[in-house]
Amino acid sequence: MSRLPLQLISAFNPTRLGRTIRQVLASNPDEEIIQVHGWIKSVRLQKRIAFAMIQDGTTPRSLQAVFRDPEHAKVLTNGASVCITGVLTASPGSGQAKELLAETVEVLGACDPETYPIQKQALTTEYLRDHAHLRVRTDVHGAVLRLRDTVMRSLHEFFQNNDFIYAHTPIITSNDAEGAERLSAPSYLTVSSQLHLEVISNAVARVWTLSPCFRAERSQTSRHLAEFWMLEAEWAFVRSVDDLCNVAEASIKHVLRLNSPDRDLLQKDINASCGLVAAASDIPWPRITYTDAIHELQKSGSRFEFPPTWGAALQSEHERWLADSFARGPIFVTDYPTAIKPFYMRQNDDSRTVACFDLLVPHIGELVGGSLREERPTLLEAAIKRQGLDEEVYRWYTELRRFGGAPHGGYGMGFERLISWLGGIENVRECIPMPRWSGRMLL
Amino acid sequence: MSRLPLQLISAFNPTRLGRTIRQVLASNPDEEIIQVHGWIKSVRLQKRIAFAMIQDGTTPRSLQAVFRDPEHAKVLTNGASVCITGVLTASPGSGQAKELLAETVEVLGACDPETYPIQKQALTTEYLRDHAHLRVRTDVHGAVLRLRDTVMRSLHEFFQNNDFIYAHTPIITSNDAEGAERLSAPSYLTVSSQLHLEVISNAVARVWTLSPCFRAERSQTSRHLAEFWMLEAEWAFVRSVDDLCNVAEASIKHVLRLNSPDRDLLQKDINASCGLVAAASDIPWPRITYTDAIHELQKSGSRFEFPPTWGAALQSEHERWLADSFARGPIFVTDYPTAIKPFYMRQNDDSRTVACFDLLVPHIGELVGGSLREERPTLLEAAIKRQGLDEEVYRWYTELRRFGGAPHGGYGMGFERLISWLGGIENVRECIPMPRWSGRMLL
Repeated sequence: MSRLPLQLISAFNPTRLGRTIRQVLASNPDEEIIQVHGWIKSVRLQKRIAFAMIQDGTTPRSLQAVFRDPEHAKVLTNGASVCITGVLTASPGSGQAKELLAETVEVLGACDPETYPIQKQALTTEYLRDHAHLRVRTDVHGAVLRLRDTVMRSLHEFFQNNDFIYAHTPIITSNDAEGAERLSAPSYLTVSSQLHLEVISNAVARVWTLSPCFRAERSQTSRHLAEFWMLEAEWAFVRSVDDLCNVAEASIKHVLRLNSPDRDLLQKDINASCGLVAAASDIPWPRITYTDAIHELQKSGSRFEFPPTWGAALQSEHERWLADSFARGPIFVTDYPTAIKPFYMRQNDDSRTVACFDLLVPHIGELVGGSLREERPTLLEAAIKRQGLDEEVYRWYTELRRFGGAPHGGYGMGFERLISWLGGIENVRECIPMPRWSGRMLL
Repeated sequence: MSRLPLQLISAFNPTRLGRTIRQVLASNPDEEIIQVHGWIKSVRLQKRIAFAMIQDGTTPRSLQAVFRDPEHAKVLTNGASVCITGVLTASPGSGQAKELLAETVEVLGACDPETYPIQKQALTTEYLRDHAHLRVRTDVHGAVLRLRDTVMRSLHEFFQNNDFIYAHTPIITSNDAEGAERLSAPSYLTVSSQLHLEVISNAVARVWTLSPCFRAERSQTSRHLAEFWMLEAEWAFVRSVDDLCNVAEASIKHVLRLNSPDRDLLQKDINASCGLVAAASDIPWPRITYTDAIHELQKSGSRFEFPPTWGAALQSEHERWLADSFARGPIFVTDYPTAIKPFYMRQNDDSRTVACFDLLVPHIGELVGGSLREERPTLLEAAIKRQGLDEEVYRWYTELRRFGGAPHGGYGMGFERLISWLGGIENVRECIPMPRWSGRMLL
């Protein structure tokens, strides 16, 4: 039983991989003998029959195996890995279209039901964080993993359709794009791929990446990780914040419209106020300048801990109000004051704001941030000086502008925040398989 | 001229992105007015006409712009970024099917031909390494970037077709999968995603990733980088090295069979001995045990610096001989001695070898390494002890085996080595946009 039956190996299947449970569930019950591998999710022993639900993580669904002799199922315990041979057949029961009439069963890896840490009853979030090596075996964490994969595919599709090239940018860098703290000497772990994508987008006009990024802040919020994945897109020949927003909005709507049984599984508990369905419609998301946003906040009558003031950064409470109460959905806030933004953002004609945007979404706050990049060398050099940065360090960056530099811009989106929004998952620590945050690293 | 003409903006084009040169070259010349953005590759001024070749990096090809008044082309210099409006029309000249009859031209970013570091004459590899921020503007480095993207797409396709989930594994880790040196205290930068993929593959049965990995070795060879990208696949319910090799071989053949004008551009200089065409055929690649390989090396009559001896690692010269001379193509070497392999590899019944393989390819040497992982807890714990590792550190790893652990295995492939092989590129430093190696980090 250590090999697949020969008749299952097709000459046109050079991988010789067996069928996954997803493939079995998608196939027609044609009464042939098949072999199925997976883990036992539950066992139901009756007097003259037994049932076992089997999963292999390729789908949120389980395959029901039926044992006409309950004795054969007595070796099965939750969590054990098994190989079952049997006939796939239409199921007379409700709840599944087909089932596996088991003929033989082999336990590949036993699982002691007394000591198995992943018990059937609800386990707390904190308990699962402590069992990082096993939590992916729960329905929720399996669904998160598959949802990440599905969303990635959707993003690849969007960017390929629009002629963006996927590029790999360095993790160890001599730059410090956001003025974050050092994580290790003498080089930095990257906080953003933007500057490197700018290099590439000045030759390969449209480029994107999904790269690990790092923050050394001691943040303990539900929206921050020390190590997270950021989608960044950068392209040449864009000349307005509106056009940046168009691409960001189209890319996210592409993701919002995907079909995912895993998202459905995760969302079953969340209330509709996240407005995901409305957000996916053709209706454009509202856009408002920072200046107008401050005005709306001031006249809202809401009590804020920090009074909204022109020139100050938007606080989380302000961002929440704008998305949750004002727009009741995603909203772009554009053209922030120059003084509170990084040196590379393009100066607007009013000389006091820069050509940038943040996308705020309900419950999450900032999901995306982007800008046109200053492509005029003298203005860029002035900004570097004004912010007290080392001109020598950024010489290559200004040189990009001196030799055929094109107007360009782009945006970055926290991938775990996107998953958090899509799945209605409260904390980004549950949106990544092995989370790292301040003071915490398992595995 | 700062916006696209309105008639070019379709209501069904929510991104409002203009047409890339790849799209223009793929479209029919229908005499409509279009706007094209890109960089000048060359200009040819004649008495009554002028020509400019324009690229935007979305394709290795250029679009020819024709100026019926050569005066209009006099502002153009190599490297400048431009916006040209004109009519796409069938070309009377040879060398291109269509061309752009220019009506207006706007220089977006000038480029001084006297000081531009990317001159037309051949530039040395070392010179381009020194100009890391500009080398992507050369034909070769643009092609490498697009080839990486094309190969990634092909790999995504292969693994999706086979129900593998793409997973993101941590960069900062407390593990040290290969016994490599520390890059930074108190945690490590990952040298392999394998242990984390093992966690996942014991719940989501098939998983893969393409992740940055790090080596602190002071290596200066043409095959090593301090920061590189590694494809790793891991799956449950595999029980033989042959089945591991089947998947590795199928995935690489899938890539070898792709169409890529960029690979053609890069390969134009390399001789046929890399055997890429033969390697892509249906004929299975040869497989040989380490023991037999030592025997073949010994009887080869070749003079090796290191005499081939059972129990010692294969040296580069041995690997080269096996691929270049013995197999004249890719060759799997399997079942190496236990003593020279990491603790996690599965013990064979002979008790002196482990169930593993290396894939050797001409000119490169080792491209892939993989193994079954020891899933029997007592044998695993014995191996951890024998290699003097801290049992406490690996408790979670052995626990995976105690709770329903499935037989599993996988492999890792250096992505830059794959690009090096496919493109006939001598050094992996030219196979990644911003290379880092011992003592060297620009940007």
